Amino acid sequence: MIALDAMGGDLAPAATVEGALRAHRERGLQIVLVGDEQRLRAELRRLGAADHELPVHHASEVVEMADHPGQALRRKKDSSIRVCFDLCKSGEAAGVVSAGNSGAVLAGALFVLGRLEHVDRPCIGGSLPTLGGAGRAVLVDMGANVDCTALQIVQFALMGEVYARRVLGVSRPRVGVVANGEEEGKGTELTRAAAAALRKPESAVHFAGYVEGKDVFSGDFDVITTDGFTGNVLLKTAEGAVWAFGQLLKRQIQSSRVATAGALLMRAQLEQVRRRVDYEEVGGAPLLGVQGVAMIAHGRSTHRAILNALSGAEAFAQQHLEEDLAAAARRGEELVAQRAAS
Amino acid sequence: MIALDAMGGDLAPAATVEGALRAHRERGLQIVLVGDEQRLRAELRRLGAADHELPVHHASEVVEMADHPGQALRRKKDSSIRVCFDLCKSGEAAGVVSAGNSGAVLAGALFVLGRLEHVDRPCIGGSLPTLGGAGRAVLVDMGANVDCTALQIVQFALMGEVYARRVLGVSRPRVGVVANGEEEGKGTELTRAAAAALRKPESAVHFAGYVEGKDVFSGDFDVITTDGFTGNVLLKTAEGAVWAFGQLLKRQIQSSRVATAGALLMRAQLEQVRRRVDYEEVGGAPLLGVQGVAMIAHGRSTHRAILNALSGAEAFAQQHLEEDLAAAARRGEELVAQRAAS
Repeated sequence: MIALDAMGGDLAPAATVEGALRAHRERGLQIVLVGDEQRLRAELRRLGAADHELPVHHASEVVEMADHPGQALRRKKDSSIRVCFDLCKSGEAAGVVSAGNSGAVLAGALFVLGRLEHVDRPCIGGSLPTLGGAGRAVLVDMGANVDCTALQIVQFALMGEVYARRVLGVSRPRVGVVANGEEEGKGTELTRAAAAALRKPESAVHFAGYVEGKDVFSGDFDVITTDGFTGNVLLKTAEGAVWAFGQLLKRQIQSSRVATAGALLMRAQLEQVRRRVDYEEVGGAPLLGVQGVAMIAHGRSTHRAILNALSGAEAFAQQHLEEDLAAAARRGEELVAQRAAS
Repeated sequence: MIALDAMGGDLAPAATVEGALRAHRERGLQIVLVGDEQRLRAELRRLGAADHELPVHHASEVVEMADHPGQALRRKKDSSIRVCFDLCKSGEAAGVVSAGNSGAVLAGALFVLGRLEHVDRPCIGGSLPTLGGAGRAVLVDMGANVDCTALQIVQFALMGEVYARRVLGVSRPRVGVVANGEEEGKGTELTRAAAAALRKPESAVHFAGYVEGKDVFSGDFDVITTDGFTGNVLLKTAEGAVWAFGQLLKRQIQSSRVATAGALLMRAQLEQVRRRVDYEEVGGAPLLGVQGVAMIAHGRSTHRAILNALSGAEAFAQQHLEEDLAAAARRGEELVAQRAAS
């Protein structure tokens, strides 16, 4: 059973309820909708759901996007986000999906579920489409921690590797650290320390070196590691570049009748490309390093994005990664301590 | 007269000589080719140039891409890069263009020309295509300085603003600082300190706040400021995303005959889009904060990229920005000192 914060996201509750209903009907997922019971039941009726086709757990409050995450979590004890985590903590739910205030999701996971042993800071795993390789790379951290230590970067890499291997099914994930060049001498003090630790055989991962911004989409790396500031800039720049390129293409096409006709012939292919780069198809970003399963969905999540985030949370929950993630974090501690000692 | 490092770049000397010849013939620019005289004269003959149509200044050595920039500059006293800067220093040339080892170009500029007064660290101004606004935004620093102080970030912003205004002709450039969100509380300690200084009226620039990765292409910002590590990741991620999107589009189109026919109808428009996002059309990245004009061209520069870099260097040199850049750097010192005092 996955607890869905049915009040979270720009298009909630319409998109959340529809996404959940589809996930239940099309993929057989067990979901509990958390939020204002009256509104959620009304949405379910509107969508033609049978009575009690999906369980609803009432929560009287909502964390707004403008709320301070930590404060909102403490004060709004009956908020949909917090109640989701309470259900997870009590064992009633195996995971949480929310498209709401992502800071509050992070705070809720930390406050209610708590960190896994040995984990210095949990991180968020973003998803980058790639041309080759597995078709997707995991970006850790995509924004939870702006100022990071080498230990944190190393732990992000090792936890991201566990996720890529166990949940995404990549047999031997190639791990990279983001830098401004491929040579070992590039990067900052921080990236050099993290790379030196990951390069050791004891890291037990396939460390493939530094990855430059231009190579994150090649498929040569399955796990792309960086601090949350750089990760956020990287992910949003990629989104922005693709958006701008698409807009430019659209304008150019619309400026010519012949090109417009050409675009019509390409419609199916353009749609395939759109799907391939669209966050909707990924749906959510896993929170790695907490005692439980949490998936952060995009604030603008459509029902399709919610559907995919719910599937992602289910896949994550089924793997029971807690032990492996804690072991990875512990290995990170050893690698960085060795380094400090040597 | 612009001194061109005719030996620098993957396609040199063929691309450099052809770019220079075209710049001379098509745009009337005065250029001196610097490098192995025999090879350069042979290239000129191959291209049908008249004797002495372009002057050649002999330089017997070349800085290789794998060379250590600082060492190469000191040891290879007759390298084409170094000789270019010597010509600039002596006043024979008004500026330098090189597609060679960019670290060596930076080292040469610092070592031979020297920093401008008040400038803590020079930076490199990259160019990002934008949908709205001026069509191009200046990214400072795109990679010269990986670890930065708030003073440096503020000076990059103020020098970038001078360049956007005086060379690119943007009447009142809007300046942004890269962060992981638009709200003032976002970012790191470094970005918050830089933003606080730039926000003061005494900065004398139009500070438009934080800019997220997704908004760098919108045209809402003319000068986009960040440390050289983040700037390099941002620029290369944008390049990589556009490349990957293009590849994906190509593959999808080739998988269908109907789509291939459609693409043929769109050929002229696709070419326009390619030109719009191509570094060839920009040609070079100005080095800001040294006593002279230096333009760093892409290592893979074609003759068209060299032609555009030469034009860019000429435009930069004609503005005689030294005083304005030094004044901007001084204003940066005052803004950050005020901040430290307050």
